[in-house]
Amino acid sequence: MKKGRVDRILAKMKEQNMPQMIISDPVAIFYLTGHWIIPGERMLALILNVSGNHHMMINKLFPQQDDLGVDITYYDDIEDGVEIMTQFIEKDKTCGIDKTWPAHFLLRLQELGGAAKYVNGSPIVDKVRQIKDEEEKELMRISSRVNDQVMDELIPIAQTGISENELNKAVRKLYADYGCSDVSFDPITAYEKNAADPHHITDDTKGKRGDCVILDIGGKLNNYCSDMTRTIFLGEMSERAKEVYDVVREAQARGIAAAKPGNRMCDVDLACRDYITEKGFGEYFTHRTGHSIGIEDHEWGDVSSVNEAIIEVGQCFSIEPGIYLYDEGIGVRIEDLVIITEDGCEVLNSYTKEPIIVPFED
Amino acid sequence: MKKGRVDRILAKMKEQNMPQMIISDPVAIFYLTGHWIIPGERMLALILNVSGNHHMMINKLFPQQDDLGVDITYYDDIEDGVEIMTQFIEKDKTCGIDKTWPAHFLLRLQELGGAAKYVNGSPIVDKVRQIKDEEEKELMRISSRVNDQVMDELIPIAQTGISENELNKAVRKLYADYGCSDVSFDPITAYEKNAADPHHITDDTKGKRGDCVILDIGGKLNNYCSDMTRTIFLGEMSERAKEVYDVVREAQARGIAAAKPGNRMCDVDLACRDYITEKGFGEYFTHRTGHSIGIEDHEWGDVSSVNEAIIEVGQCFSIEPGIYLYDEGIGVRIEDLVIITEDGCEVLNSYTKEPIIVPFED
Repeated sequence: MKKGRVDRILAKMKEQNMPQMIISDPVAIFYLTGHWIIPGERMLALILNVSGNHHMMINKLFPQQDDLGVDITYYDDIEDGVEIMTQFIEKDKTCGIDKTWPAHFLLRLQELGGAAKYVNGSPIVDKVRQIKDEEEKELMRISSRVNDQVMDELIPIAQTGISENELNKAVRKLYADYGCSDVSFDPITAYEKNAADPHHITDDTKGKRGDCVILDIGGKLNNYCSDMTRTIFLGEMSERAKEVYDVVREAQARGIAAAKPGNRMCDVDLACRDYITEKGFGEYFTHRTGHSIGIEDHEWGDVSSVNEAIIEVGQCFSIEPGIYLYDEGIGVRIEDLVIITEDGCEVLNSYTKEPIIVPFED
Repeated sequence: MKKGRVDRILAKMKEQNMPQMIISDPVAIFYLTGHWIIPGERMLALILNVSGNHHMMINKLFPQQDDLGVDITYYDDIEDGVEIMTQFIEKDKTCGIDKTWPAHFLLRLQELGGAAKYVNGSPIVDKVRQIKDEEEKELMRISSRVNDQVMDELIPIAQTGISENELNKAVRKLYADYGCSDVSFDPITAYEKNAADPHHITDDTKGKRGDCVILDIGGKLNNYCSDMTRTIFLGEMSERAKEVYDVVREAQARGIAAAKPGNRMCDVDLACRDYITEKGFGEYFTHRTGHSIGIEDHEWGDVSSVNEAIIEVGQCFSIEPGIYLYDEGIGVRIEDLVIITEDGCEVLNSYTKEPIIVPFED
């Protein structure tokens, strides 16, 4: 068990009068134990108790070689795992429940009178996970540095105009070559009109002179996700594209400037959005400005106009405004990850945001 | 909505005094509507009511182009989808809950007093899905016919002794070439000792003379899964391997003979297991005999020694006994899919079960 992380969760549980909590999400369990256990449809549960009497329930199919620092009860497919678990839950007290726990386990626990009251416990875990510790910050930096390198190797491939599908495969190969276990998400490698269509599915479209190309890519390195977007231009860049690019670039810079402790998440969104609106493109910035990121590409806490949460030191999120002019075949998005510091933020990506016009052979 | 399927579920709901039920699993919703809606972490719900007043809740991010034959309420990320849903649930009555529904939706529904009582509704859906209708039977036949062809094309590739990983890729390519959307599961392409290790992970092992090769493969065609296993031998087959092979083959034949209406699922398992035990290999048959299959590779209802459910016409499941002698480097499994008929079963695979000794160049 990662003591600092568990302690931060226990402190919040005490604050919120939640004496015990069932955590079932394999990602949260990896966060707290450093071990991946992927049980499929079978029950997996880490029961945290503010008393320090923690316990874990694991199906016998997933024996652990290492000491997880917590007592484990193994059950098999013929046993009623939830019933066995009730002996580790205080039935006269409230119990936090993982938001993702399949309903049939909760229904069975309720039927057995497992606890006095059941509440969603995940906001506590999500809020703690939102603040990265030093180990996590370093892993996010390393992952993003590799992302800069992948972008650098990808652009010469993109400038050949090969199909979106081929480009997608090239991205995946680059991450594998750099030791990533997987991509953070299905890479976006979209040309021209497709770059301006938020619902576009990667296809066999090839690049042609003058196209914008959105490259929105990320990889999972040491279990931490990177995520960056650059928009490049094949052979030439129209005046109109330049105008749009400059607006997005300035909007993104304003978003970064607003990313500091004490501001609200929505202030970052509005810093981008207000500038884009002022320049007349408000209706073409059709998504939120960003999302929290860490072990998962999308973690709890988005950078949107309705999230009024105060930004805290240690948060890590994306800032990725865009403008999408479908009828003109122009789509531009620029994205970096940031970690919030005492007086602002550290930008994890260093790949240039100058307009990139690559040579293109017709 | 697929009327026959919905009606069968409603009939069981009436039988079990469950006036309404929330179905959230995208697979079950596909089964009932013919449409895939994959909402990720967002709420998706088909509310069935025995009165016929069905309703569906879908996030605005997933607009439906086609008429699903049911009224739909769209909600957005800023709205409380569960609260909106309560107007379509009778609060003074019991409500079935999908086993996979994430707990936080159920907790919210309970907090709002959405229903009088909450019970796991999935056994009803699973039981109905277990009995394939004519449309499904035909799709299972077509999918398995393609599987026979893939096996036929795969064996000449396997006999070159290329690595397990390369063989795995070859399997995936064959299914794609035959129009399958995906494999049903990660293909098992294991040589020698690896074939005898149930926890083996596909690696770079290559085949050598005398190796057994387990090929356990399946593809998703028209949304229905195939799944078949054959064990082949490279260049030669030892007397011991022949002995093991013959036992597995006879055991599998006995399992097929036991697969008929009126018998219990465990009778199929025992028909295989008893014969293998009688021949002295009981402890080396380390898994259940099979599993139900359809839209998903593993559906509810396994062919195991503890499943005493009576077999019914229309069920579809695998029969796949095996013997695994790790120390001798011999692993043999033979698997076919069957559909239960009035007087026995129809075997969906026609690929030979004669011992297959392929030419092998050292």
